[in-house]
Amino acid sequence: MKVAYVGAAPKSTEEVERRRSLLQQWAAPGTTIEMAYAKEGPASIESMYEEYLAIPEYAKSMVRLEREGFDAAIVGCAGDPGIDAYRELCTNMLIVGPGMSSFHAASILGRKFTLLTVADNMIASSYELIQKSGLSSMIASVRAVNIPVLELSQNRAQTLENLVQIGREAIERDYADVLVLGCMSMAFLQVAEDMQKLLGIPVVNPAKAVLKLTESLSSCGWKQSKSAFSIPPKLSFGKASTIEELIVKQKN
Amino acid sequence: MKVAYVGAAPKSTEEVERRRSLLQQWAAPGTTIEMAYAKEGPASIESMYEEYLAIPEYAKSMVRLEREGFDAAIVGCAGDPGIDAYRELCTNMLIVGPGMSSFHAASILGRKFTLLTVADNMIASSYELIQKSGLSSMIASVRAVNIPVLELSQNRAQTLENLVQIGREAIERDYADVLVLGCMSMAFLQVAEDMQKLLGIPVVNPAKAVLKLTESLSSCGWKQSKSAFSIPPKLSFGKASTIEELIVKQKN
Amino acid sequence: MKVAYVGAAPKSTEEVERRRSLLQQWAAPGTTIEMAYAKEGPASIESMYEEYLAIPEYAKSMVRLEREGFDAAIVGCAGDPGIDAYRELCTNMLIVGPGMSSFHAASILGRKFTLLTVADNMIASSYELIQKSGLSSMIASVRAVNIPVLELSQNRAQTLENLVQIGREAIERDYADVLVLGCMSMAFLQVAEDMQKLLGIPVVNPAKAVLKLTESLSSCGWKQSKSAFSIPPKLSFGKASTIEELIVKQKN
Amino acid sequence: MKVAYVGAAPKSTEEVERRRSLLQQWAAPGTTIEMAYAKEGPASIESMYEEYLAIPEYAKSMVRLEREGFDAAIVGCAGDPGIDAYRELCTNMLIVGPGMSSFHAASILGRKFTLLTVADNMIASSYELIQKSGLSSMIASVRAVNIPVLELSQNRAQTLENLVQIGREAIERDYADVLVLGCMSMAFLQVAEDMQKLLGIPVVNPAKAVLKLTESLSSCGWKQSKSAFSIPPKLSFGKASTIEELIVKQKN
Amino acid sequence: MKVAYVGAAPKSTEEVERRRSLLQQWAAPGTTIEMAYAKEGPASIESMYEEYLAIPEYAKSMVRLEREGFDAAIVGCAGDPGIDAYRELCTNMLIVGPGMSSFHAASILGRKFTLLTVADNMIASSYELIQKSGLSSMIASVRAVNIPVLELSQNRAQTLENLVQIGREAIERDYADVLVLGCMSMAFLQVAEDMQKLLGIPVVNPAKAVLKLTESLSSCGWKQSKSAFSIPPKLSFGKASTIEELIVKQKN
Amino acid sequence: MKVAYVGAAPKSTEEVERRRSLLQQWAAPGTTIEMAYAKEGPASIESMYEEYLAIPEYAKSMVRLEREGFDAAIVGCAGDPGIDAYRELCTNMLIVGPGMSSFHAASILGRKFTLLTVADNMIASSYELIQKSGLSSMIASVRAVNIPVLELSQNRAQTLENLVQIGREAIERDYADVLVLGCMSMAFLQVAEDMQKLLGIPVVNPAKAVLKLTESLSSCGWKQSKSAFSIPPKLSFGKASTIEELIVKQKN
Repeated sequence: MKVAYVGAAPKSTEEVERRRSLLQQWAAPGTTIEMAYAKEGPASIESMYEEYLAIPEYAKSMVRLEREGFDAAIVGCAGDPGIDAYRELCTNMLIVGPGMSSFHAASILGRKFTLLTVADNMIASSYELIQKSGLSSMIASVRAVNIPVLELSQNRAQTLENLVQIGREAIERDYADVLVLGCMSMAFLQVAEDMQKLLGIPVVNPAKAVLKLTESLSSCGWKQSKSAFSIPPKLSFGKASTIEELIVKQKN
Repeated sequence: MKVAYVGAAPKSTEEVERRRSLLQQWAAPGTTIEMAYAKEGPASIESMYEEYLAIPEYAKSMVRLEREGFDAAIVGCAGDPGIDAYRELCTNMLIVGPGMSSFHAASILGRKFTLLTVADNMIASSYELIQKSGLSSMIASVRAVNIPVLELSQNRAQTLENLVQIGREAIERDYADVLVLGCMSMAFLQVAEDMQKLLGIPVVNPAKAVLKLTESLSSCGWKQSKSAFSIPPKLSFGKASTIEELIVKQKN
Repeated sequence: MKVAYVGAAPKSTEEVERRRSLLQQWAAPGTTIEMAYAKEGPASIESMYEEYLAIPEYAKSMVRLEREGFDAAIVGCAGDPGIDAYRELCTNMLIVGPGMSSFHAASILGRKFTLLTVADNMIASSYELIQKSGLSSMIASVRAVNIPVLELSQNRAQTLENLVQIGREAIERDYADVLVLGCMSMAFLQVAEDMQKLLGIPVVNPAKAVLKLTESLSSCGWKQSKSAFSIPPKLSFGKASTIEELIVKQKN
Repeated sequence: MKVAYVGAAPKSTEEVERRRSLLQQWAAPGTTIEMAYAKEGPASIESMYEEYLAIPEYAKSMVRLEREGFDAAIVGCAGDPGIDAYRELCTNMLIVGPGMSSFHAASILGRKFTLLTVADNMIASSYELIQKSGLSSMIASVRAVNIPVLELSQNRAQTLENLVQIGREAIERDYADVLVLGCMSMAFLQVAEDMQKLLGIPVVNPAKAVLKLTESLSSCGWKQSKSAFSIPPKLSFGKASTIEELIVKQKN
Repeated sequence: MKVAYVGAAPKSTEEVERRRSLLQQWAAPGTTIEMAYAKEGPASIESMYEEYLAIPEYAKSMVRLEREGFDAAIVGCAGDPGIDAYRELCTNMLIVGPGMSSFHAASILGRKFTLLTVADNMIASSYELIQKSGLSSMIASVRAVNIPVLELSQNRAQTLENLVQIGREAIERDYADVLVLGCMSMAFLQVAEDMQKLLGIPVVNPAKAVLKLTESLSSCGWKQSKSAFSIPPKLSFGKASTIEELIVKQKN
Repeated sequence: MKVAYVGAAPKSTEEVERRRSLLQQWAAPGTTIEMAYAKEGPASIESMYEEYLAIPEYAKSMVRLEREGFDAAIVGCAGDPGIDAYRELCTNMLIVGPGMSSFHAASILGRKFTLLTVADNMIASSYELIQKSGLSSMIASVRAVNIPVLELSQNRAQTLENLVQIGREAIERDYADVLVLGCMSMAFLQVAEDMQKLLGIPVVNPAKAVLKLTESLSSCGWKQSKSAFSIPPKLSFGKASTIEELIVKQKN
């Protein structure tokens, strides 16, 4: 099975390779991971504006990867930005996001989960994201760690300490019985595993959740339902033959 | 009050002027309407992919219009694409969308409304849009007229006939007591007014709904709550000084 | 546009004139406000019993005002008492309430609002009122200021101080990003405007919200759907020709 | 146990006695039923306007009955008009309505119930009434028999036939497994019992449901929670000593 | 009316007689209570596992009691374990549970209730039980007293003190206006009555609630809808003639 | 990874081996499947009563399998009977059910799914099962194929034809965009794969869904949260040392 991990914006070759290597190590035998990072995009995603900014490049990558024969592609951002659009565009390649994967995994493991997001400004949109998955009734709370995405990995010990403290508040005050990390930079920092030991409840690493769920669904031969995510009419009716043609420019 | 109507993609000068003239005619005394259409974008919006495609140009227009001193701006698409992003970016300019405006107007006028959207492929995402407004419990149904956006105005009589027929089904089978048109091309075709006479229940024209609601809220001095829609952290913390700087490019 | 503001109970000529003058000043050019206060009714409305007490006189006023050619009428109480009844009785005059108007305005401006009601005994019924608008999912909380309605205006400074303090609690503990005042006496005290400056989030004055929303909907030619609010059968089938005939008396 | 059945409007002595006699016959040993019909009010209740019209006289009766030492009182209308107000006013007399009683009984007997209301114009408000009971998730449907209240008893055979036919539609199309009659005139016609035999599923007679539930709750020593239904502040703070004093009149 | 109270597990003859005597004393004239305790089962029920353990014996008792001509049977555990199964098996005997009865009674008496369950480990499943009754929207909270079931009656004064304290927290922090005891051992300890006096709001004793509700529904001739709770197909199609035949054993 | 598939009742050695072989063939490299069928239990599960009947033997198997060192166990019935109990009893062995697995898989693949259950009598409890997963908002419908479980495999062609026809109805009338098979006998008949080809939308085979999801979650080191599913108090406090001791017998 060929799985692509699609990144929103350029990262250093080392960091991309480090992430690939982790994913490959977590993957089942027979799964090959390839990384597809856009050449331009938001440095990190910590606002709805940056989520939307990432979508056009994501879409181009998805269409290309499907043409190249990938079985499945992972949206490399915990907010699953634009995933309904890529599911419209692709028919033969399964597309899954880490947000939805983590919420479903958490809902199977317990009764109420808390999502730990990056900063306060993302709390409201996180509730909307969970609602889109249909899982609003499983939310204990959404809480923010309030460390900028680009600084999360600079001091892993501090990040872990903050996450453990906020996780503990979620358990004690909101009665969470599962925690979900809401950021891929947290995911690749591998703090979920330490948190789980320290807190005694499952802590969902979204990178693992999305990878394993993608493998699961794909190995069963399932892809997104085209009845739910139809090909854009201009493409299906032949008024445009590529996604580039969907853009028109003003004539002078 | 200076209100901008922001369009997703280039339209002919005549069509833009025709729309401006209608909006100006519907506006209250003291309101000035200006049109701000992007120079490139999707020819029409009839898929989630096309919604997302329109957002980056919309965002640039919004930031510019706020700087130019507009009191309010209208997102010129009935799906309100990206509105939470523009509300993050703008503080002094109220931003309202025709989708949300129509759903709220319909909910005040009756108990259950039916949204008439363009085509079947937009039905599922229309339910999600209404859910985002918090008004799921007021939905009678979402039904599609299944005429491509760019053909709606080519045969106004046919479009009206189809809309009346589907509206009648919504009334009889889904017990709708208000109808909402879910497309700005329908809105500027001014069929809502004819439908209302023929069907005997309120039919919400989203162009009128959003214009009048924008005037209402703005005249009371209200703007989107910055507590709900915070400025993106990189901008508020000074790590970027313009929205353009939020994009990074791969170094070679 | 002729708009009537219908009051539940007698007030001093001065107070009625003061309120009319404020409404007229907030109104759009072309709107004429007339005040219609009942000659008897509850001195103020701070229980469900008093809400119901006001309805019979309200209904008579509404029927008269429609006959006199008013375009729209506003229910002058933030609990919108009996509004579905007046909407049944009137066909050509739009009827709107300040409660529903404020909840819809708040839902457009943010994601979660707190309603500040008069006293603890109205908290439970306030939740029911918001639920009737379909907007339960947008509630952050309902909190009470616990100053009797008739004393609110006697010490404006104290009222403002209390409202600001309770508003702050709503922001900090309930994560409200919009506040709504739940009483017309608060509305005409014009404290919302001061609160908004002090608290930094939108504060909805229900008098302004209902006036502007009424103007908006009415200027679009929309009235309450008669499919949702049918004329009472005895009137539509001619068994009674006036609302007075709907009352029968015991024969001796 | 002394239980009052409170009627909204004058009825003939014979009809009142017929109803009392049925209630007394259904009552448990030790229960005494007294009838308290208002001297003026709506001839029948088949609109929200008529519901509200009945409330002021109902309230006066309730206050008098509590003073006379009744243990419990039944609101004699299936829409439970104004029940929250009487619960505010009365502390020592339990007040129950046939609407809420029937919905709760039906929810215990099955999983989805259909309410059979009088006419189409009451369908929307019936949904709201069920929602107020918290039981929206148990609704299969609300359907109307469309016979005017005052004609229901004139042709019992026809009424029964219509009810059976609509009940059958509810079972087949809406998957109802319990039916509820939504009108006290239907209740005292004793058609529920025949319907139950013909249709094979429980059919809730609201007169029986409210009587037996009232006896149940009252025999356990439970009354409406004053924490949910507080005494109106003007009465509890001594600003008014009777409910009559809550009404003020305009001075000339 | 013959009503059976069906217990999950053996209890001392004295305790069974004490409970029978209380139920008989609470019963209406004409009701005869008989106790049917299983000969083996869980000593007490304080986990989901113990709930399920009790079901097979409960089912056998129910089938026998129906054959013996009982009008109604009460599931003697506040979690209503397996009630949908007994309702499938029995047609002529009404079966009611104390959990559902208490939730419905509480919902009629107020607007928000708190369930006081035995221990923290039952909180999550208590929410699911209330949800099954359709009454999730009436929940203020579920709180645990954290005294093992078998020790509740050893120190009645301590149990009462704990319950009053937790009840007070529910009132102050969760705005409960009715309390429900969630355990039959609490019920037969008769602490609800003392709590009600001390706390000033209704406190529902589940043993009384289920007894009175059972009498109410049964006296109206209502039983569980067989459309909601069908006879298991193997029994209705004659593939098994007794419930024992539904069990097959491995052949060697 | 050692995974046990736990069956509710004795099956022929051939059928058990056939099922094991299919599961092993679907499993990832490194997964070993063992079958654990109870020696006595319901011949098939097609009522709530039969679901409950299976639980005590299931529980014993689960406790034994955990002691034997299995990493994970699958409840071999699409209704997930008693799964919360086994999750209480087991700490180191992950326990997953095919019902919940299928609902979550379907919710990821589309927006609305239809569950195809065995017979009409299971429709109502199927809705409750989906509600327990938190996924009520993703339901298009529950429809029944109405072929007894034990006859499903006797005429595979007929079963497939019926399923395709009912699936088509779900697509056309209920707008399902994913189908879920609600029975393990259907699952091991491998009709989902044929249906998917014929109907063009994803059809979830619950045996595959639960196997792959179990492998996914287990490979990430996640087990059910003990905070959500606590060990029964008598076991955790040492009042019983085995689950057998939780049962008491009447002394003579």
